[in-house]
Amino acid sequence: MTERVRDLDETALLARIFPLLPPGAATLVGPGDDAAVVAAPDGRYVVSTDVLVEDRHFRRRWSTGYDVGVRAAAQNLADIAAMGGRPTALVVGLGLPGDLEVSWVEGFARGLADACTRAGAAVVGGDLSGADTVLVSVAVHGDLGGAAPVLRSGARPGDVVAHAGVRGRSAAGLALLSAGAASPDDGAPSAHGPLAPYVAGFLRPEPPLDGGPAAAAAGATAMLDVSDGLLRDAGRIARASGVVVDLEEATLATSVSDLAPAARALGETASAALAWVLSGGEDHGLLATFPPGATLPAGFTRLGSVRAGDGSPRVTVDGRAPSAGPGWDHFRG
Amino acid sequence: MTERVRDLDETALLARIFPLLPPGAATLVGPGDDAAVVAAPDGRYVVSTDVLVEDRHFRRRWSTGYDVGVRAAAQNLADIAAMGGRPTALVVGLGLPGDLEVSWVEGFARGLADACTRAGAAVVGGDLSGADTVLVSVAVHGDLGGAAPVLRSGARPGDVVAHAGVRGRSAAGLALLSAGAASPDDGAPSAHGPLAPYVAGFLRPEPPLDGGPAAAAAGATAMLDVSDGLLRDAGRIARASGVVVDLEEATLATSVSDLAPAARALGETASAALAWVLSGGEDHGLLATFPPGATLPAGFTRLGSVRAGDGSPRVTVDGRAPSAGPGWDHFRG
Repeated sequence: MTERVRDLDETALLARIFPLLPPGAATLVGPGDDAAVVAAPDGRYVVSTDVLVEDRHFRRRWSTGYDVGVRAAAQNLADIAAMGGRPTALVVGLGLPGDLEVSWVEGFARGLADACTRAGAAVVGGDLSGADTVLVSVAVHGDLGGAAPVLRSGARPGDVVAHAGVRGRSAAGLALLSAGAASPDDGAPSAHGPLAPYVAGFLRPEPPLDGGPAAAAAGATAMLDVSDGLLRDAGRIARASGVVVDLEEATLATSVSDLAPAARALGETASAALAWVLSGGEDHGLLATFPPGATLPAGFTRLGSVRAGDGSPRVTVDGRAPSAGPGWDHFRG
Repeated sequence: MTERVRDLDETALLARIFPLLPPGAATLVGPGDDAAVVAAPDGRYVVSTDVLVEDRHFRRRWSTGYDVGVRAAAQNLADIAAMGGRPTALVVGLGLPGDLEVSWVEGFARGLADACTRAGAAVVGGDLSGADTVLVSVAVHGDLGGAAPVLRSGARPGDVVAHAGVRGRSAAGLALLSAGAASPDDGAPSAHGPLAPYVAGFLRPEPPLDGGPAAAAAGATAMLDVSDGLLRDAGRIARASGVVVDLEEATLATSVSDLAPAARALGETASAALAWVLSGGEDHGLLATFPPGATLPAGFTRLGSVRAGDGSPRVTVDGRAPSAGPGWDHFRG
């Protein structure tokens, strides 16, 4: 018989989860008391939070518990990297329906643990509640190693715009799943078919976390993680810094090629792939600006340059306004 | 026309919330970037998280947005105090239905801000999502000021058991509201009727936050915040420390008297009041153990003593097992 969350009390459920969550180097007091204690060697810590709600941020028919654990960790860890920090500790609040399989929760914990361990971080505490649908709330913490945090507001005219991580894969994977042109199995860890990179990119994003501290060390003047699409997130740097961020379409050609098999599987052309690259969210790559002449850290690709805002901070592509909003016009026309 | 959450986009809603949240002394980088930066002067921080789900932890027909903001802050802040820490920073995840009034969200932010400001803490970041019911997830952080954290596991035979804060008021208020014997208005900030302390105690608990660092300074050997009732939470110290926690019923007489008007309003006797004192949750007082001879800090009342566990850690009342579980038998018999 399938074991359900309602078959266990909170203590019993926690006893199944805790052993799946290894402690980290910064964990001084881990789960089990009123609060955890975490090391903050440079006298500050970076903190951010993200909430995932079932059927708004993920669907259980597409994402396994493991996938949701990886995704919840990844999108939070990327926020620490985007400040130039290294992730150290997470606390996790879970709302769980009574009929949810316990194996789903265990899978979630394993996904969370795997993504945290790869990043050098650990889950140090959490809270369980009943809920009508699955809710995941993560607060993530990191260490700046003595460096100044890289904000969104430091981009200056003349800076180079660069990006680390995949571009558009998550949006392509979502489009494939939505259209029924791919199944979640196509993105399973063991899958190797032509659609695997897109579906996996949607289910289990892998932000380039090392790129954050590397960009800070290279003198990055502004940085954020791309959660809502290149155009929209570049617009956030533009507004916070009072500049124009100009992207050069030619620099995106390899990304468009990378997405070509997904576009073909959907009967779409290269313009669909370009739309994914410019407007697709949830890849959680790092978009940063660097002083002219800076050596870009490994993993970063130059995408354009920063120009004076002239009182109208905005994003341009090859010097022109992206046609009709943040790019989905490519699907309309 | 009533303004609803769905009438605003996320940026516009955040623009209504942020001005209501003053920065704190530890806030180095506040809301608006990928993450906040918070001071951790002693090279460590304490962190805990709690999730509140509508209709499981609060009802909107009883609790205003302001009430839920105060409650969400209070129960989290108490976890920091229970480690001996002083709260510094919170991040808050919100799930909001589209038809929720914007004024409810603004009230929530004001309640959160008021409770945080009283505690010397500040909201430094957050995340908004849509949801079918209101969800609140808080992660709270604090500073230990160089002291060792007070865990649940340090109680030793011979220690004094003591408590700071109200006992049973939240349970009495919940019972009054559930029975229709009181209305939320009886607990409004301006209310002064005989039932006001109970209803207010349920709607807007006020944990004795200063008691946490004071207890640590006085040498407290174990401590936690009472969220699930004196008996149940004393049992957690007993099990973590491998001891017997013996409560003396006579020490609870003033608390029982304090609840007498609520019991009378419900046609109940003093045994109902004793049940609220022993088993009522969500007062978020601090239960601590101190070495024999220690001077109890202001606000703490001696409730009993710690005895050797003899391989069977447990809670006793006047040396005997509490009759039938954690106390609700008082309602049954």
